[in-house]
Amino acid sequence: MTGRPPAAGGSGTTARRRGRPPRTESADTRDRILTAARDDFSEHGYEKTSVRGIAKTAGVDPALVHHYFGTKEQVFEAAITQSFGPALQAPKAIEEGPLDGVGERLARFFFGVWENPATRAPLLAVVRSAVTNETAAAVFRRIIATQVLRRIAVRLELPDAELRAELAAAQLVGTAVLRYVIKVEPLASADPEQIIARVAPVVQGHLTDP
Amino acid sequence: MTGRPPAAGGSGTTARRRGRPPRTESADTRDRILTAARDDFSEHGYEKTSVRGIAKTAGVDPALVHHYFGTKEQVFEAAITQSFGPALQAPKAIEEGPLDGVGERLARFFFGVWENPATRAPLLAVVRSAVTNETAAAVFRRIIATQVLRRIAVRLELPDAELRAELAAAQLVGTAVLRYVIKVEPLASADPEQIIARVAPVVQGHLTDP
Repeated sequence: MTGRPPAAGGSGTTARRRGRPPRTESADTRDRILTAARDDFSEHGYEKTSVRGIAKTAGVDPALVHHYFGTKEQVFEAAITQSFGPALQAPKAIEEGPLDGVGERLARFFFGVWENPATRAPLLAVVRSAVTNETAAAVFRRIIATQVLRRIAVRLELPDAELRAELAAAQLVGTAVLRYVIKVEPLASADPEQIIARVAPVVQGHLTDP
Repeated sequence: MTGRPPAAGGSGTTARRRGRPPRTESADTRDRILTAARDDFSEHGYEKTSVRGIAKTAGVDPALVHHYFGTKEQVFEAAITQSFGPALQAPKAIEEGPLDGVGERLARFFFGVWENPATRAPLLAVVRSAVTNETAAAVFRRIIATQVLRRIAVRLELPDAELRAELAAAQLVGTAVLRYVIKVEPLASADPEQIIARVAPVVQGHLTDP
């Protein structure tokens, strides 16, 4: 938490360089803006959310939002990274433990995040924004490529590791879309353990089958 | 094509019962409204689309839209059913031919529809609307349940046929979301034949494995 909000009448070259408030207040403000951003993006989607609106929700001046995060796209990336934090731990499920149990570890991890109401809401917001807005999709792509796929590829040590990881992710993401977003039955009400039992071998197959 | 637009000053009990124009003009108007609806839902999403806007795009009176289709939800359902027409042929891929080739037939059919730019655009619109709006999701659920799952279940003759069909669909839908909507690489640029080769056995497994 090293953000520095602008001092009144500051004359710095950019909004990011002006003034410096007390440390704790600064960290608190930054968190408040990020939470407001997440809530606004969740509720209104990427397009209808504005820096001004986020500032209003957070109870701060819009200049502070620009100061801490930059453009709307950058606020979104910060909010996604925070919201998506739990999901970004997915590579750990691959890195830790033997490769032949990776399908079940990943499926268990993935549905654990989605079954938890506290982590499901921000994930839903990310999915909705990425599906409906090209800028949001680009941010999502960048995060997936740099924080997830690369680590998985390193672990698998196969030339087509990234394609494998994406096809495995497709089974998981598709199941989440049908179960949690569209809510088709009987999938929406099925026991998570039953789903994991059916999906884990598919994930395993995509990742490690010859 | 049996729609009947309202006659000026008609005194019928509902908008659906008033007057009757020449046959060909009526069919033509109905199609024009449906095309306008599809374009509007595609471009603006479910929430921002209105019956008034659709009427304007089609160059007709809003009363005509209500007359042919009813509420906005009903216009959406008609537009989805038309847009989704090719995808609704999926059960045929299951019904026609031996069960042990069903995974490849379904995968080939599915990616055939998505790879065709003419059918991809309306599918994208349906996915975007269903993911972001609850009413649109409900319409989508109803179509999937009545027009797709039931037919697949009849063909499979297994007690958990619908769950199997949904998990198979999840692999296909997830792959489409990552490839055509979010456009993650290398999946977005991969040869469709390579994708079909990897996805078909998964679809087959979900549907027919013991």
